[in-house]
Amino acid sequence: MLIVMHHQASSRDIEKVKKTIIAMGLRPVAIPGAERTAIGVVGNQGWVDDMPLRDIHGIKEIIHVTKPYKLVSRDFHFPNTIVRIDKNTNVGERRPFLIIAGPCAIESREQAMKTALFLKKLGIPVMRGGAFKPRTSPHSFQGLREEGLDILSEVRERTGISTVTEVMSPEHISIAAEKVDMLQIGARNMQNFDLLKEAGRTKKPVILKRGLSATIEEWLASAEYILLEGNPNVILCERGIRTFETLTRNTADLSVIPLVKSISHLPVIFDPSHATGKRTLVPVMSLASIVAGAHGIMIEIHPDPDHALSDGPQSLHFNEFAKLRKHMKDMEIFVKKL
Amino acid sequence: MLIVMHHQASSRDIEKVKKTIIAMGLRPVAIPGAERTAIGVVGNQGWVDDMPLRDIHGIKEIIHVTKPYKLVSRDFHFPNTIVRIDKNTNVGERRPFLIIAGPCAIESREQAMKTALFLKKLGIPVMRGGAFKPRTSPHSFQGLREEGLDILSEVRERTGISTVTEVMSPEHISIAAEKVDMLQIGARNMQNFDLLKEAGRTKKPVILKRGLSATIEEWLASAEYILLEGNPNVILCERGIRTFETLTRNTADLSVIPLVKSISHLPVIFDPSHATGKRTLVPVMSLASIVAGAHGIMIEIHPDPDHALSDGPQSLHFNEFAKLRKHMKDMEIFVKKL
Amino acid sequence: MLIVMHHQASSRDIEKVKKTIIAMGLRPVAIPGAERTAIGVVGNQGWVDDMPLRDIHGIKEIIHVTKPYKLVSRDFHFPNTIVRIDKNTNVGERRPFLIIAGPCAIESREQAMKTALFLKKLGIPVMRGGAFKPRTSPHSFQGLREEGLDILSEVRERTGISTVTEVMSPEHISIAAEKVDMLQIGARNMQNFDLLKEAGRTKKPVILKRGLSATIEEWLASAEYILLEGNPNVILCERGIRTFETLTRNTADLSVIPLVKSISHLPVIFDPSHATGKRTLVPVMSLASIVAGAHGIMIEIHPDPDHALSDGPQSLHFNEFAKLRKHMKDMEIFVKKL
Amino acid sequence: MLIVMHHQASSRDIEKVKKTIIAMGLRPVAIPGAERTAIGVVGNQGWVDDMPLRDIHGIKEIIHVTKPYKLVSRDFHFPNTIVRIDKNTNVGERRPFLIIAGPCAIESREQAMKTALFLKKLGIPVMRGGAFKPRTSPHSFQGLREEGLDILSEVRERTGISTVTEVMSPEHISIAAEKVDMLQIGARNMQNFDLLKEAGRTKKPVILKRGLSATIEEWLASAEYILLEGNPNVILCERGIRTFETLTRNTADLSVIPLVKSISHLPVIFDPSHATGKRTLVPVMSLASIVAGAHGIMIEIHPDPDHALSDGPQSLHFNEFAKLRKHMKDMEIFVKKL
Repeated sequence: MLIVMHHQASSRDIEKVKKTIIAMGLRPVAIPGAERTAIGVVGNQGWVDDMPLRDIHGIKEIIHVTKPYKLVSRDFHFPNTIVRIDKNTNVGERRPFLIIAGPCAIESREQAMKTALFLKKLGIPVMRGGAFKPRTSPHSFQGLREEGLDILSEVRERTGISTVTEVMSPEHISIAAEKVDMLQIGARNMQNFDLLKEAGRTKKPVILKRGLSATIEEWLASAEYILLEGNPNVILCERGIRTFETLTRNTADLSVIPLVKSISHLPVIFDPSHATGKRTLVPVMSLASIVAGAHGIMIEIHPDPDHALSDGPQSLHFNEFAKLRKHMKDMEIFVKKL
Repeated sequence: MLIVMHHQASSRDIEKVKKTIIAMGLRPVAIPGAERTAIGVVGNQGWVDDMPLRDIHGIKEIIHVTKPYKLVSRDFHFPNTIVRIDKNTNVGERRPFLIIAGPCAIESREQAMKTALFLKKLGIPVMRGGAFKPRTSPHSFQGLREEGLDILSEVRERTGISTVTEVMSPEHISIAAEKVDMLQIGARNMQNFDLLKEAGRTKKPVILKRGLSATIEEWLASAEYILLEGNPNVILCERGIRTFETLTRNTADLSVIPLVKSISHLPVIFDPSHATGKRTLVPVMSLASIVAGAHGIMIEIHPDPDHALSDGPQSLHFNEFAKLRKHMKDMEIFVKKL
Repeated sequence: MLIVMHHQASSRDIEKVKKTIIAMGLRPVAIPGAERTAIGVVGNQGWVDDMPLRDIHGIKEIIHVTKPYKLVSRDFHFPNTIVRIDKNTNVGERRPFLIIAGPCAIESREQAMKTALFLKKLGIPVMRGGAFKPRTSPHSFQGLREEGLDILSEVRERTGISTVTEVMSPEHISIAAEKVDMLQIGARNMQNFDLLKEAGRTKKPVILKRGLSATIEEWLASAEYILLEGNPNVILCERGIRTFETLTRNTADLSVIPLVKSISHLPVIFDPSHATGKRTLVPVMSLASIVAGAHGIMIEIHPDPDHALSDGPQSLHFNEFAKLRKHMKDMEIFVKKL
Repeated sequence: MLIVMHHQASSRDIEKVKKTIIAMGLRPVAIPGAERTAIGVVGNQGWVDDMPLRDIHGIKEIIHVTKPYKLVSRDFHFPNTIVRIDKNTNVGERRPFLIIAGPCAIESREQAMKTALFLKKLGIPVMRGGAFKPRTSPHSFQGLREEGLDILSEVRERTGISTVTEVMSPEHISIAAEKVDMLQIGARNMQNFDLLKEAGRTKKPVILKRGLSATIEEWLASAEYILLEGNPNVILCERGIRTFETLTRNTADLSVIPLVKSISHLPVIFDPSHATGKRTLVPVMSLASIVAGAHGIMIEIHPDPDHALSDGPQSLHFNEFAKLRKHMKDMEIFVKKL
């Protein structure tokens, strides 16, 4: 921590800062400058609460050097975390690139099973499908809820495909954890801290989406909540951020993938469907995310997107997805060789 | 709803759009233009799901005219909603301006009681105090939780002051509803839909803060969730939005107050503490919010801000608050006369 | 300047940083920490270019303590700058509050003169009126340009009212400087550095609007360009920033007024017309800006807003303005007494 | 254009709207709805100024269907525009992918020539190099200005490589147009309309960067300024937008590339250096932009980035660029085959 003093700060102000630091059990180091003095703080074992200092007269700025997270950082744990999803499926290594696909919402047993059988045929290991749906308007379809979970459970039983579904409330977690293989925490709940803690109390893999206007630091601090409760199986998912542009649903931030990978050991995947909101942009952005170094992708497909109860315009038709899947395989091999 | 066709759209495309609208039980009205055709949709009783139309070839844009909320709108219910907090306290009329004050977090019985007695002396009707604290980092103080609620309950019993506390999870609501008079839903939970629904199932007044990067439309749609479950007692609270500026914690958006009041019948209050994050800006912005037409204010004060466990730098000292309170009274009278 | 090292940085890395700092003519001060080392830089007389350090191995972050501006800062010049507009009109003191009013664009001699005579009757000292109009689309009205300047010159001659107009290009400045009393640099040109420099070479008062998504630091650095060329007569103008909200044209940031006044000695005024884009919000936000401590206001009025060639919906009718003017006077006196 | 009436609008209001539309030479088409009436406007040949309608009582919203640009749109001109840079170099087709590289700023003849010879050896057809530098602070290096242009002219003469430089002021254009082959208009000047018009009066290829917080619509309207003056040779350049993230300089928006290509016939290139601000992210994002469909790239390289006078941290070393160049070639071929 660094305390920058105003250039008019008196020597009494500076003394008060130093004494306060000592009272906090830390050591002050003065850095006198031409225009002003700064005081470094030495001896802390991590994040220091600057509370006792904040209102001392003459302080211009307090600069934190230590981050509000630790467990998720490569400084703390260097090697890549590999999250195991089922006995054949991992995520966190460059290859194989993890593909998760499925409808935005589980609408019926038929729709889900049709999708699962299609995915099985293609060898896709994980199916997504929303049972609890977060919708801006209460007048929109809210998901099949428990019934949706039952359908997902049946999908797994009949096809052997692993499943992931979004949880929106702590009480969803124990119910969902029985019926699906992975939990997803959506962008709007990235800072729903009770939900994060509850997800930390299972050992299920958790996909944590980045908030609509969250910084990387906030996103990693949210992941820290899950790890701190004892669950190391967190997968970060970039799904686009809110910007001034209205022609796309969100703005895909692909550079966050290599950047977060340099800071944290957690796997990072990409959701091209929400990141763009437009079916025509999904294939190209999916392929670009492999180049950016994503460990996997979560993508919306639907047997009949024109009649999807939600997110139809961003869902791929089965044949579009099959074609993209082939291109993704080629890209994965190509990128590996670079 | 208006469907705008591409200028190259064929007459077959246009026919398909019209037929689909008819199949939806609605009536199409063509608006031929020099460059392109648009098709108006007539006959809907509210929000129309555009799903069956989305992927018809030749459509350039679908424009919604109806909003994703209804109950919160002045179109639906014109007069101001007056929310009753206790037998002497209402909010939703221009006067008296509602003042809610208190610490960010309940830290101890002593701190809470000291604040409550001070407020009582000044005649402030409602005390705020966080029991469950949403914090970016899991390493920061998380609130006294149930113990904090007990302290708030005691405050009410011993001083007669009404209380408000933040709830972060549906399970908090039934517990909190017994111990406090009003519930608060924070900015990070504005789209925590299960929480909104649960809050809709009580009759307690609910302060709904605007999300960090929420639009007015999203904010009102979130309020709609609460009303739709049967609770009309919603108070909207502007608490600043996230912008590129880093010198303030958030950016206070005062113009949202008159604007939202023109769209919705719900009361609107202002939180100058989170909106600015800086004690020195709080008094001036509090007074400005009265001019902007706020129905009330929720403000952080602390017996000893330098040692507050959270939000110290934005909390007023008691004497600062007493002075501001006097100024607010004068401003209220002054504005009334304009 | 503070250099934060990676926690794995070797002692050789640290030595290299120290040597480089010495080679820059400065003095390194090591601040060893539990997790990592930081190195303070001492001896600089202002902003230090960190270029020679940037790519030394083992550096995690370089933190600048000195700001990219100096002349505009209260650290450099403490008392308020008072900008003299004409022999009777100043801005930069709390009273009298400066009012600038007039049409968005000069449309005709008749429209301009009608407005000027109305302002004269009310005792308003400065009229605004755009000759060069920055418009998003080239298909919109671009202003009367030189003819507009001639009209403004005639306004001044016949009524004695001072005038201000926007300049968009360095070559406008010498032409405009002859015909008007103040120059305005618009939000879109806040970082048009050649324009800023040219404005710095006159002695005319310059109203510098904040950019659509500019930070305070960038805004002040732009003002610094003008002062550095020798023109101290800069007036900062908050005109709303771009946010995700689309119901208002921009989002008025009133808290920036007291904040910038605490950092800089320059006068700060407010433009409620562009900040809101809605006539109904203009009066309330104008009054609120007086509370926030603005030194003045620049407001759009029009003899016939329904037929204005630009910004009609945000322009006040004459009678609305006359009423607001009375309220502003009352508010000014009221606030003075607080 | 669609005029949406308030649900309380009287039939007199509706009549007034219709009459006004007729007075504008257009035809109103009423679309009565359950809750409210909307009125379509028919007969316009392009953008309609809604000025005469804006303040008629009872209007809730005016929705524009026609865009504020025309010439840049595929609706107007369908096939891709191919911009010719020199007799061997075009941009606007998928292959060959255009590579522009060079230093942020021209610092000396030696630095420029060293770079040019290196590019020549690699077969790179265009060199970038700033003579006029837009810098936030007036205390930073401002470029060699005219001397920089002379160096670029010499580069072209001695190596045959085409050159591009940024212009910041209309008066730069005629000077620069003689000495370089392409002009660049930077993000901060995207709405410097006099500069755009002046650039429209040459026939030189113009690279138009997207503004820091510009929407696609604004960007295209700015390009329209250039085309409208008679210069069709505009190349759009995505260079990252401002977001809340501070770990990257800007946020690269790769999805804008396929999106803009679907709306406009102009070539679109990508600047990975400013989009990320970090050398380590440049290669990966460069490759990803090829996947996204960019027609080319403009990238910063420097013979000695550690001592660059600006943008050192985002400039590639020569050997890094040579490696990336090889990878880009491979990627181009790979993508072509998909």
